Amino acid sequence: MIESLINSDNAELTQSTKKGSPVVLSTRVRLARNIVGTPFPERATSAQRSDVMTRCAEQIADLTQMKHGVFYDIAELSDLEKQVLVERHLISRELCESKSGSGVFINKDQTCSVMINEEDHLRIQFLKTGFSLRSVWKQIDRFDSGLEAGLDVAFSPEYGYLTACPTNLGTAMRASVMMHLPGLVISEHMEKVIRAVNQLGITVRGLFGEGSDATGHVFQISNQQTLGESEEEIMSRLGSVFKTIIDHEINARFKYLEENRARMLDQIGRAFGVLQNAHVLNSHEAMNLLSLMRLAVDFEMLPEANRSDVDRLFIECQPGHIQYSAGEGIAPDARDLCRADILRENFARLPSLDFDKVKDLG
Amino acid sequence: MIESLINSDNAELTQSTKKGSPVVLSTRVRLARNIVGTPFPERATSAQRSDVMTRCAEQIADLTQMKHGVFYDIAELSDLEKQVLVERHLISRELCESKSGSGVFINKDQTCSVMINEEDHLRIQFLKTGFSLRSVWKQIDRFDSGLEAGLDVAFSPEYGYLTACPTNLGTAMRASVMMHLPGLVISEHMEKVIRAVNQLGITVRGLFGEGSDATGHVFQISNQQTLGESEEEIMSRLGSVFKTIIDHEINARFKYLEENRARMLDQIGRAFGVLQNAHVLNSHEAMNLLSLMRLAVDFEMLPEANRSDVDRLFIECQPGHIQYSAGEGIAPDARDLCRADILRENFARLPSLDFDKVKDLG
Repeated sequence: MIESLINSDNAELTQSTKKGSPVVLSTRVRLARNIVGTPFPERATSAQRSDVMTRCAEQIADLTQMKHGVFYDIAELSDLEKQVLVERHLISRELCESKSGSGVFINKDQTCSVMINEEDHLRIQFLKTGFSLRSVWKQIDRFDSGLEAGLDVAFSPEYGYLTACPTNLGTAMRASVMMHLPGLVISEHMEKVIRAVNQLGITVRGLFGEGSDATGHVFQISNQQTLGESEEEIMSRLGSVFKTIIDHEINARFKYLEENRARMLDQIGRAFGVLQNAHVLNSHEAMNLLSLMRLAVDFEMLPEANRSDVDRLFIECQPGHIQYSAGEGIAPDARDLCRADILRENFARLPSLDFDKVKDLG
Repeated sequence: MIESLINSDNAELTQSTKKGSPVVLSTRVRLARNIVGTPFPERATSAQRSDVMTRCAEQIADLTQMKHGVFYDIAELSDLEKQVLVERHLISRELCESKSGSGVFINKDQTCSVMINEEDHLRIQFLKTGFSLRSVWKQIDRFDSGLEAGLDVAFSPEYGYLTACPTNLGTAMRASVMMHLPGLVISEHMEKVIRAVNQLGITVRGLFGEGSDATGHVFQISNQQTLGESEEEIMSRLGSVFKTIIDHEINARFKYLEENRARMLDQIGRAFGVLQNAHVLNSHEAMNLLSLMRLAVDFEMLPEANRSDVDRLFIECQPGHIQYSAGEGIAPDARDLCRADILRENFARLPSLDFDKVKDLG
């Protein structure tokens, strides 16, 4: 059912040929919205959920940003299809568990998804590769205006947007970036950074929800608070914290490279060699090896043109994607073989690492 | 001082272009001989040792097999030079520690070495790459006949050749092969094999004297007894045991490959990738990776023509050789960088592993 989405040749996260950013993999903003006079999804009857769905669908279909988009009824997706959408950050794990009358709209280039009857009636998300808080905010704000023009959205002058969970009250906005922070992890500064940004009301989670040593050195960093600040204020505060983290990360990398040159080149070299030649790779190891390949691009040991390959493989090597590409129902062992095959094929096409290139830096 | 030996372009172990054997790296035979009327080296005076040296040197220089050979006085070699000769199996560790008046003759292609005033007055060794017990025996026997024609060698009708240590009495001959036994190690049959051959009076030691999990999966297998059997009998008994071990090894490999195909290809693939890309490699790891590359040649994943490269690197990646090639006095850390550089350069010249080739077997 989701085949066209998987094979799309202009999906933002897997097919982007835009110049990537050295630290930020992607930027996302999501808004929670609810319709006046209807209970929140968890409390709504089946008929009410269905009514919400109908009303939202009509409105969403009219918006130019959703032109040529698709709609998936969650009840009609297999577990594997849902997992693939989760791995692409297009739906949440919560939506997968939800009752009937839930679904998701996804636009053509997979930069916009709107979940219906998740925790709230509407969860709107826009994403872009790289670091572009302002531009993503602008897009989602415009989309939201269009939506609200035709829907009666619950808003209180005192609490702002009303949401099923009080932690989302106010702007009901969550802005996050997916950051690749190998420098901070390897130099063991990640915990300090997490503590510092937590005190600024900012949350840090691993790609799969782990702590300071996340798989693939990838972290999701977002605002904790939605109440008491305008969207503009949140964006501006987040933007400056994100920029500070990026600076720290870049410094940590070059300091580590300067002080542990051979060890760093050794780690990157071995990772490349394993990706080119391994026959068994679990997803945890694959993510960590790919992380070092992203670093190889940053250090100019691999051409910038290959950054998008690495970023695409980050998505495509996750368990659901591997299982989907192999056909349903293969065992975890077979998945590790299949993942290794895909990575070998991809890395066979890359040039050898240029270990001398990195000498110009540091 | 040993520079010409290191750089020789026809050294048997490092420059051989002969077709190698899939299991046996090299064959060696050594004989212990002592001169009548002179105390064994340990008991001899400095003058007596020096006299032995003079008499042997004259005789050895006359033998055609030692034509264009070199002589090294042990007292004049640096510790590093001695280590290099040990790593090439041209002298023993015992000789390195010996008193003045000790030395070694080495022929042009490094197949023959004669140690003077080691444990015995003379320790003659012939070696060849591959499995060739008979031909090595023939060569050393001829050399010994020439030597004994001009020297009065101690021999008793009852005990055979007299030697400093009683365990060498009789033939005073030790024949050994250096075997590459990854199949038996990985399939965990090595201990059983060691126990079985021990009962047949045969000794198994690791390359560096370890037990059943030797570095690089390389084992030295030799006769324990020298008394009560003729050289011919020993050779024939050894030959049949060696052939049995070779059969077991080949069977173990293909059985393992059949039952653990992905894991085997994974191990070989990763080893190749690391050798092509690592920047830090200690000698233990390097030997184990090279062992898998020898297996890759056996499985036809690498061309047969590259077997001699792998065998040469087995020798050249040992600590003394690395240190020698880098110049004296580099720290162990720097040695690991230097070893990785050498291996990277060598493996950059090899073709990629052909993972499909191996499908024809098993």
